[in-house]
Amino acid sequence: MMDITRFVELSFGRWRSQRSAHHLAFSYFEQVISTIDIEPLELDDPQVINLCESYKIAPQLASVPFKMSWEGESDWDDNEVVKGSTILVPIPDLQEPTKGKLLREQGYAETIPAIGHYQFSNDGTFVLMTDYERATAEEKIWFVTPNLRCRVSLIKTSDGNGATTASFASEIRSLTTNS
Amino acid sequence: MMDITRFVELSFGRWRSQRSAHHLAFSYFEQVISTIDIEPLELDDPQVINLCESYKIAPQLASVPFKMSWEGESDWDDNEVVKGSTILVPIPDLQEPTKGKLLREQGYAETIPAIGHYQFSNDGTFVLMTDYERATAEEKIWFVTPNLRCRVSLIKTSDGNGATTASFASEIRSLTTNS
Repeated sequence: MMDITRFVELSFGRWRSQRSAHHLAFSYFEQVISTIDIEPLELDDPQVINLCESYKIAPQLASVPFKMSWEGESDWDDNEVVKGSTILVPIPDLQEPTKGKLLREQGYAETIPAIGHYQFSNDGTFVLMTDYERATAEEKIWFVTPNLRCRVSLIKTSDGNGATTASFASEIRSLTTNS
Repeated sequence: MMDITRFVELSFGRWRSQRSAHHLAFSYFEQVISTIDIEPLELDDPQVINLCESYKIAPQLASVPFKMSWEGESDWDDNEVVKGSTILVPIPDLQEPTKGKLLREQGYAETIPAIGHYQFSNDGTFVLMTDYERATAEEKIWFVTPNLRCRVSLIKTSDGNGATTASFASEIRSLTTNS
């Protein structure tokens, strides 16, 4: 049975990501190769406590907070290096352990803080929904093997009837950090 | 609750597919735009009965058989037109309606007949596993809206420890056939 602690612990490490974005209205493709680092944070890290408090959530409710950093290159602009990092704090539901909230310091789709709602489906897929002002992001992440994650992200219009972008990342654990 | 009848019926029609394949070992990308037609077949269609009999399965066990045709262009070779069609026959499990077998006249990964095992996860995703001689194909298909399907296909090594290719298709219902 997958839960947020196991899922986040499986995600720790360095990943090489190959991502394709489909811009649906015009059938455009975009390709990005990037490196993603996912590392644990302490529960008493001031960044974690600040993020909880900014959402008026008691920091004692947090589990397995982590930091995600990425650095990549898009084929749309050779000179553009996409680089950033964010802090993520899961707040598991006390009644239903397969559900919870995910606090995010800064989204990768938007540059504002965001609160998402996650749920694990019975095949172990992490499903995250995040409402933004003009759009809803729906993300599914699952492990194919312990060293291969798949991630599908959809940007949907707020009315839920359409989607503007669908993107897919295959993420392979980078073993070079172990050598 | 999703079952095979509802899933196949939602799939009928013409789809414009935007597909990205990730060749994992070398971080190669391949892009394909194609048109996919999914149309119902009669349960007493000789092609359906022949396919059931070739697997020694009673044709009365079949549900919602369908034909899938595709025609597309890959960016790997401008002159290559990827074109084909196949017949698919679901055999739902009598005990568990969310599971079953899928008989396929000819796979799109291989050119030989194949029998897959499907299962719906509780979020409505169709998950299909097909064992080939040297590889296992794992496919997930789900509806984001009635007019947008996502499809992730993985070609895994037979030992289950690795994957050679991950591909993602976003499929938009083509409404031109209604006009």
